[in-house]
Amino acid sequence: MSKVYDYTEVAKHNTPESCWVILYDAVYDVTSFLNEHPGGSKIILQLAGTDATEWYDPVHPPGTLEESLPSSAKLGTIDPSTVPVVEKAPAEATAGEERPVDLQSLLNLDDIEEVATKKISKKAWAYYYSAGDDLISKTLNNTVYRQILLRPQIFVDCTRCDTSTTVLDHKINVPFYVCPAAMARLAHTDGEHGIAQACSTFGAMQLISNNASMTPEQIVADAKQGQIFGWQLYVQNDRAKSEAMLARIATLPMIKFIVLTLDAPVPGKREHDERMNNIGANLPIKSAVQSGSASNTGTNPEAKSLGGIGQTLFAGTACDLTWKTTLPWLAKHTKLPIVLKGLQTHEDAYLASLHTPQIKAVILSNHGGRALDTAPPAVHTLLEIRKYCPEVFDRIEVWVDGGIRRGTDIVKALCLGAKCVGVGRAALFGLGAGGKQGVERVLEILKAETETCIRLLGCEKIDELGPQHINSRAVEREIYDGPDGLDRSFLDKIKAKL
Amino acid sequence: MSKVYDYTEVAKHNTPESCWVILYDAVYDVTSFLNEHPGGSKIILQLAGTDATEWYDPVHPPGTLEESLPSSAKLGTIDPSTVPVVEKAPAEATAGEERPVDLQSLLNLDDIEEVATKKISKKAWAYYYSAGDDLISKTLNNTVYRQILLRPQIFVDCTRCDTSTTVLDHKINVPFYVCPAAMARLAHTDGEHGIAQACSTFGAMQLISNNASMTPEQIVADAKQGQIFGWQLYVQNDRAKSEAMLARIATLPMIKFIVLTLDAPVPGKREHDERMNNIGANLPIKSAVQSGSASNTGTNPEAKSLGGIGQTLFAGTACDLTWKTTLPWLAKHTKLPIVLKGLQTHEDAYLASLHTPQIKAVILSNHGGRALDTAPPAVHTLLEIRKYCPEVFDRIEVWVDGGIRRGTDIVKALCLGAKCVGVGRAALFGLGAGGKQGVERVLEILKAETETCIRLLGCEKIDELGPQHINSRAVEREIYDGPDGLDRSFLDKIKAKL
Amino acid sequence: MSKVYDYTEVAKHNTPESCWVILYDAVYDVTSFLNEHPGGSKIILQLAGTDATEWYDPVHPPGTLEESLPSSAKLGTIDPSTVPVVEKAPAEATAGEERPVDLQSLLNLDDIEEVATKKISKKAWAYYYSAGDDLISKTLNNTVYRQILLRPQIFVDCTRCDTSTTVLDHKINVPFYVCPAAMARLAHTDGEHGIAQACSTFGAMQLISNNASMTPEQIVADAKQGQIFGWQLYVQNDRAKSEAMLARIATLPMIKFIVLTLDAPVPGKREHDERMNNIGANLPIKSAVQSGSASNTGTNPEAKSLGGIGQTLFAGTACDLTWKTTLPWLAKHTKLPIVLKGLQTHEDAYLASLHTPQIKAVILSNHGGRALDTAPPAVHTLLEIRKYCPEVFDRIEVWVDGGIRRGTDIVKALCLGAKCVGVGRAALFGLGAGGKQGVERVLEILKAETETCIRLLGCEKIDELGPQHINSRAVEREIYDGPDGLDRSFLDKIKAKL
Amino acid sequence: MSKVYDYTEVAKHNTPESCWVILYDAVYDVTSFLNEHPGGSKIILQLAGTDATEWYDPVHPPGTLEESLPSSAKLGTIDPSTVPVVEKAPAEATAGEERPVDLQSLLNLDDIEEVATKKISKKAWAYYYSAGDDLISKTLNNTVYRQILLRPQIFVDCTRCDTSTTVLDHKINVPFYVCPAAMARLAHTDGEHGIAQACSTFGAMQLISNNASMTPEQIVADAKQGQIFGWQLYVQNDRAKSEAMLARIATLPMIKFIVLTLDAPVPGKREHDERMNNIGANLPIKSAVQSGSASNTGTNPEAKSLGGIGQTLFAGTACDLTWKTTLPWLAKHTKLPIVLKGLQTHEDAYLASLHTPQIKAVILSNHGGRALDTAPPAVHTLLEIRKYCPEVFDRIEVWVDGGIRRGTDIVKALCLGAKCVGVGRAALFGLGAGGKQGVERVLEILKAETETCIRLLGCEKIDELGPQHINSRAVEREIYDGPDGLDRSFLDKIKAKL
Repeated sequence: MSKVYDYTEVAKHNTPESCWVILYDAVYDVTSFLNEHPGGSKIILQLAGTDATEWYDPVHPPGTLEESLPSSAKLGTIDPSTVPVVEKAPAEATAGEERPVDLQSLLNLDDIEEVATKKISKKAWAYYYSAGDDLISKTLNNTVYRQILLRPQIFVDCTRCDTSTTVLDHKINVPFYVCPAAMARLAHTDGEHGIAQACSTFGAMQLISNNASMTPEQIVADAKQGQIFGWQLYVQNDRAKSEAMLARIATLPMIKFIVLTLDAPVPGKREHDERMNNIGANLPIKSAVQSGSASNTGTNPEAKSLGGIGQTLFAGTACDLTWKTTLPWLAKHTKLPIVLKGLQTHEDAYLASLHTPQIKAVILSNHGGRALDTAPPAVHTLLEIRKYCPEVFDRIEVWVDGGIRRGTDIVKALCLGAKCVGVGRAALFGLGAGGKQGVERVLEILKAETETCIRLLGCEKIDELGPQHINSRAVEREIYDGPDGLDRSFLDKIKAKL
Repeated sequence: MSKVYDYTEVAKHNTPESCWVILYDAVYDVTSFLNEHPGGSKIILQLAGTDATEWYDPVHPPGTLEESLPSSAKLGTIDPSTVPVVEKAPAEATAGEERPVDLQSLLNLDDIEEVATKKISKKAWAYYYSAGDDLISKTLNNTVYRQILLRPQIFVDCTRCDTSTTVLDHKINVPFYVCPAAMARLAHTDGEHGIAQACSTFGAMQLISNNASMTPEQIVADAKQGQIFGWQLYVQNDRAKSEAMLARIATLPMIKFIVLTLDAPVPGKREHDERMNNIGANLPIKSAVQSGSASNTGTNPEAKSLGGIGQTLFAGTACDLTWKTTLPWLAKHTKLPIVLKGLQTHEDAYLASLHTPQIKAVILSNHGGRALDTAPPAVHTLLEIRKYCPEVFDRIEVWVDGGIRRGTDIVKALCLGAKCVGVGRAALFGLGAGGKQGVERVLEILKAETETCIRLLGCEKIDELGPQHINSRAVEREIYDGPDGLDRSFLDKIKAKL
Repeated sequence: MSKVYDYTEVAKHNTPESCWVILYDAVYDVTSFLNEHPGGSKIILQLAGTDATEWYDPVHPPGTLEESLPSSAKLGTIDPSTVPVVEKAPAEATAGEERPVDLQSLLNLDDIEEVATKKISKKAWAYYYSAGDDLISKTLNNTVYRQILLRPQIFVDCTRCDTSTTVLDHKINVPFYVCPAAMARLAHTDGEHGIAQACSTFGAMQLISNNASMTPEQIVADAKQGQIFGWQLYVQNDRAKSEAMLARIATLPMIKFIVLTLDAPVPGKREHDERMNNIGANLPIKSAVQSGSASNTGTNPEAKSLGGIGQTLFAGTACDLTWKTTLPWLAKHTKLPIVLKGLQTHEDAYLASLHTPQIKAVILSNHGGRALDTAPPAVHTLLEIRKYCPEVFDRIEVWVDGGIRRGTDIVKALCLGAKCVGVGRAALFGLGAGGKQGVERVLEILKAETETCIRLLGCEKIDELGPQHINSRAVEREIYDGPDGLDRSFLDKIKAKL
Repeated sequence: MSKVYDYTEVAKHNTPESCWVILYDAVYDVTSFLNEHPGGSKIILQLAGTDATEWYDPVHPPGTLEESLPSSAKLGTIDPSTVPVVEKAPAEATAGEERPVDLQSLLNLDDIEEVATKKISKKAWAYYYSAGDDLISKTLNNTVYRQILLRPQIFVDCTRCDTSTTVLDHKINVPFYVCPAAMARLAHTDGEHGIAQACSTFGAMQLISNNASMTPEQIVADAKQGQIFGWQLYVQNDRAKSEAMLARIATLPMIKFIVLTLDAPVPGKREHDERMNNIGANLPIKSAVQSGSASNTGTNPEAKSLGGIGQTLFAGTACDLTWKTTLPWLAKHTKLPIVLKGLQTHEDAYLASLHTPQIKAVILSNHGGRALDTAPPAVHTLLEIRKYCPEVFDRIEVWVDGGIRRGTDIVKALCLGAKCVGVGRAALFGLGAGGKQGVERVLEILKAETETCIRLLGCEKIDELGPQHINSRAVEREIYDGPDGLDRSFLDKIKAKL
């Protein structure tokens, strides 16, 4: 019924005036959509006249196409015999190849990452692995935990061990959650839904990324009774879009709060991502493809750099958020509690604590080291708050993320006052290693390690953990001690300003 | 006389209902014993219907079989011609191969470990070498000594050097002892008896592991007049078993005290051990063996993970010990002095010091880094006690273990107030390198290094050593300085609680 | 017209009494010039009787020959067929080979240096890369920035970002400048003029080296309206030469100030440079060449060591400059403001601040680590001034250079009070990687990284940056705290001495 | 004239009852000398019945044989045709092979050591390179200098630079000297005399080892007017021998003082030396040689370990020296001033300062890291004295040695109060690299580096150098701060005890 197109015909429509793309073997005219694309028109124009499925699929929730385009945009189908064969580089070719992995033989998160690195595409690896500049913050996020020693108390009955706790008065079975990491389907078709299923198995909380590769509805579809989600908001320049999303989220009762991400108003410089995923530089050379030469593995040196996936995702994101303007706007569009994500100084934690009850929690985070390199790890900020404004802990919950590789890391953060602890890349690498089961293995490892640690510390419950169980002196002497460090009047000044 | 069985017949009895195993060419029906096995029934069931000798032998004291099973359990002998040949992996095959080693050419403990690593089986190496998580505590146990500098005093007559000292009023010729390390026969058939003989040569003390691969009676069999032993107790869930052992120990007069191990109420995560010694994962695939295929080197991916040797040994171990309940129970069942092993904080050392005269000594230890990773090295705890509650040294003896590789390490611990110093892995690797003679070489090296160090410090005797002989400033600034660090009222509070 | 010489004839004139050289295929008698050569006579004598073009060309501004020699010195031309062919070592032979580089694919300054290292000659690389002794200061110049953490402030509108600032009341568009690095034409024929053009594109300031491989007039030839330059002065033993240069600089209105370099009164020991560029040791063996043997790659073991390019450039440089004598002399010969370069202690910064208005700025610098190894990085001196004599910042501008590899490095220096920040080797490596375009890529990267950093810190303008945006505690505990460190009376004593 | 012996005849005399050796093709009966050998009889007995020249020659001053044995001990000569050929290991065989080295191309002390390592025998290398245990003190001796930063003062006339200074009121041209390192002829036949000649060239001081491989008379034979030597004394158990040596030294007027070595009363554990130079383990197997088998490269596993050269040299050395007994004894046997070598604590430096005028100087030294491993570097002791008892500097001269690889290291020690600085291994490696000329190159490099450093610091003379020229904060926080660290009463107590 639908018209069948020849590839050479499609290839001609590669301009802003007439822009066609092939997606899932169908031909679309996206000319009128160019200016509406949240990721900007440039990316589409780079792919104009070609088969864009490989780039499009893993980063758009299923159904996006139907939602975004009028049905008239679908012109017909492509004649597959006319599509030039683009040879993949050998490494890339085998990257996705599936070999069965014995997940039980993977004993720790390093094992998981190692297997995932081999299984997922280089594109996905580069996006997940990458961090700002020289990866100093990313590295420090983890090594800072290694500098903290534990202080086991002996001769204590440790038969029982209860890892459950509460966040915002909701019970969770483990004191860790999955961060709102974007683009899970790059790792595995189970995507964010697979993560949700794994979280369900372990009673863990999941934060849903604003840039998830599935819709919130798809992700929470099979949630269990009592399962807890948060939804991450990157406010869009087009506020109406964000408002629409907030309204949509309001219809999903298992989403209990909004996580407003603040640590990346502009994208960090993630060079691994830029080298591997620069859609401009890495596209097959159009002319060669269009000329019908059947085999081509070169990249296009003339293509304009569009940055990596990270930069692409930022298109349309607002960078003009402020305490004064954004919180009232939010209050108008959601009744859910607000969790501020990305605080990196005690001053900002203190500021947040002045905004109860709208703000119920903050997440100390440097965005997994993906925003500003040499930004402090969450442990530093946690220690700053303990030192300079501990009353913050009484007013709001303090969560942390970044650098978690062991149950001992989680326990250390809890000892320092964190209410719960987020894991980001580990969940994605778990997904890469084995889909939903891979994420379950990650959560299983972390739960077991956390339990062993709590018991060997001589505790039974999360709320027994405290600073007396750790020696954090090596880190304490590294934290900020600047001109306003000990100055309570500084905090009062901040307060006065609001 | 005894009946001769065919292997295929034995292989059929591999269920909880009828469970046979081959041990030392004899066939046993262990069905009724399954629930009594201290290591649990799962391990036996994994081996049910097969020749279990290789797994059984090095981890059970000779005579265990006869003690544990009624004579009726022995059904007969196996016809060796019916047993399928299981090819060993080449590495494993040569691992046990004996080449004569010139022990005198091994100059230090690193040399010994290197040779032993080549000579002993991978299984034994993994069990000995392994430690918790990322080996951070194991590594720190040693490097912390490297951070302490010595302060030699010159122009002192150092003709004489006396390395003898006392522990619990017993004289020992060297200020170090062999820790209660388990499973010595994994390294060498000389086993714990070989260690005892070597200790005899040097007048060193030996602590006998609760999980020794020989019985206490066998170990102390050839002890010299004046030779000193301690016996390590892991309290069993079935207290009667522990009580019986204590009664048995009471009949061995050269065992002078009970070492109650407290630093591992639950097993740490020793990944080297788990990877290599998971009896579930590493068993030959039964079906293949049973089907009579003569050669099989694969492992069984479907086998249930049972953890490594370390975890196996913990089966049945109690984790509900407390100051209030366990010490009185112990008092009822032994008249020997108690040494508490595994203290890692000054608070617990202080607590112990309140329990004289039952408790006569404590061993500062993080279980060789094998329990909780990032637990502090004994040197930290030693410095904590010096700083926060030095009266502990007046009330009880303080011993330490972990990380010793040089005589200077021993001397540094003594300077900080330790009464004696334990070496664990070094003795086992000595055994692996050359049996009894290998252990003697280890003790010879440590004694010579200790003497050289004492003399170059300008001392003649152990009790002349003190903090003025070391510069431990680099470590002092790393030790715990937490909320209760300097708070004597905290210690008083602890006291009040008891 | 001009006489044509045979090579063997030229080769005979290799003594102080009769010294000929071949330059650009012409034959010159430089006997009478020997004593006037700023680099000393020894170098010329090493090259006497040979073709010196390869050594001469990249280190002398075009036109030097004509300026320095009377026209009578040109005797004629060489018969090329008589010149022995000197085979180049294979590495050297391909070093200069040009392959097109996609500059946009170079994402950071490390990428640039890597590409430049492959493209430029070993001689140039060794001169640029080299630093004093063991490169400790060079390395520390960079790593000290990695020890400083940033403190991003969130929930701040960062839509706008203005990187412009002023130096000595002149506006510049970026807060960094190109240092007076010598010998740019070693890297690329675009030379210092190429750097000037790149600076023009980005509104950056450029300091012109006293030892530039182009004349000041050539360098500033195409400067844009408002483009800012400084000129670096190494005072010569023959003061008249320096006075003449100052007079010449006075005629170039875009040169706004004189940078008096003080951190290298005698050359540092730059071993990479000495090994590669020792004109004595690396010259082809004369006798072999002169004897007509056509192919020779050996070096001359008997040649007297003359040091590397660095040492050569110091010939004639005065090392007797003092506060008392040099500043009045300078005042007589230039009306331009003076910037003192190479201060490495707060005491000297304080001294400089007592010489306003003649001195308007100081550059904290250890000469890129090329003078005294283990001299402190500029960050140390910046922190010393902040701690011991902050009034310096009120009296004069403080600039810094050394070790910059990231925009975050620049921002950190600005937060600590630097007015602007110099990059030296990066510009030269940019030139090596792609001529003028390579330098532009360097400036483009630094500008983008600087902008990202400023925005993620929550700032809009350079002058909003302050110490509250960084955690420099790790460095603060490394800075000088010596006998006079906190002693204001010391500074008063210094003041009294002048 | 003299009788000619067959090798098989000599080989029979290999017992304490009849002990012959071949030396320089002569046959000696050394039976009656066995008990007089300063190195003990065991070594000779190991070599009994064989040609001992290779072991004897480099460690005995020429003439020792004639002095030690009566002429009747020489029995005759060996018939060379009867001596079995002992094949050398290939590495050893080429080790001594001479290739001309361009000493000027060696730019620093690392270059020198690298060349020497290739040129000298493995035996010599192992003896020189070796240090105690794990080489921690040896390594720290050098790295501690790298932790100290310099503070160059600019705008100072540095035209002149005078590196001369005085020790014990004698003028020396450079502030460094050659340590009393033993066995120079192992490196080169120029031996200690070659070192003396090189010192003469640079006006440097030389300390002559008690275990020099040449006699004091031979070493000082060609000394220049004004050249300064010290003589190192290891007191012998047989005091008469030491007294005789002191009397002999008294006749050599250029020897100005006695250096009494105190940091090695017993030998440290130098494993490189022990592995390579264990005369017991490394001797060719006698039986094989004696059975006439012509080629044998094996070593003798049954030989008794005698330790390395280091241990051999200690035979006969007294370890019962004390402040109370040794100094008065020394006063009776020498009028020369005494320099105490090997102090490692401020307490001992203070004690020494109480013994003026007999003691005129101390050398802070850990014996090049060759005695007790983890002993502090001299810089620590220097800083301890500065902190706890600076009056020491007023009463006696303080010299240091250990770890010097750069002129900056020397200058840093001088800034901290050292009067002069010793180099040991560097001189020996210089000798190995090029004999006397190699030592000259070492001294030339150090002098040039020292001059460059002094000038770049803005100084003219040694005595202008002070703590204000360095930032030693990183080291200061590592030095001893123990129980008696700040306690002046401790020093008073020490004083009272004497």
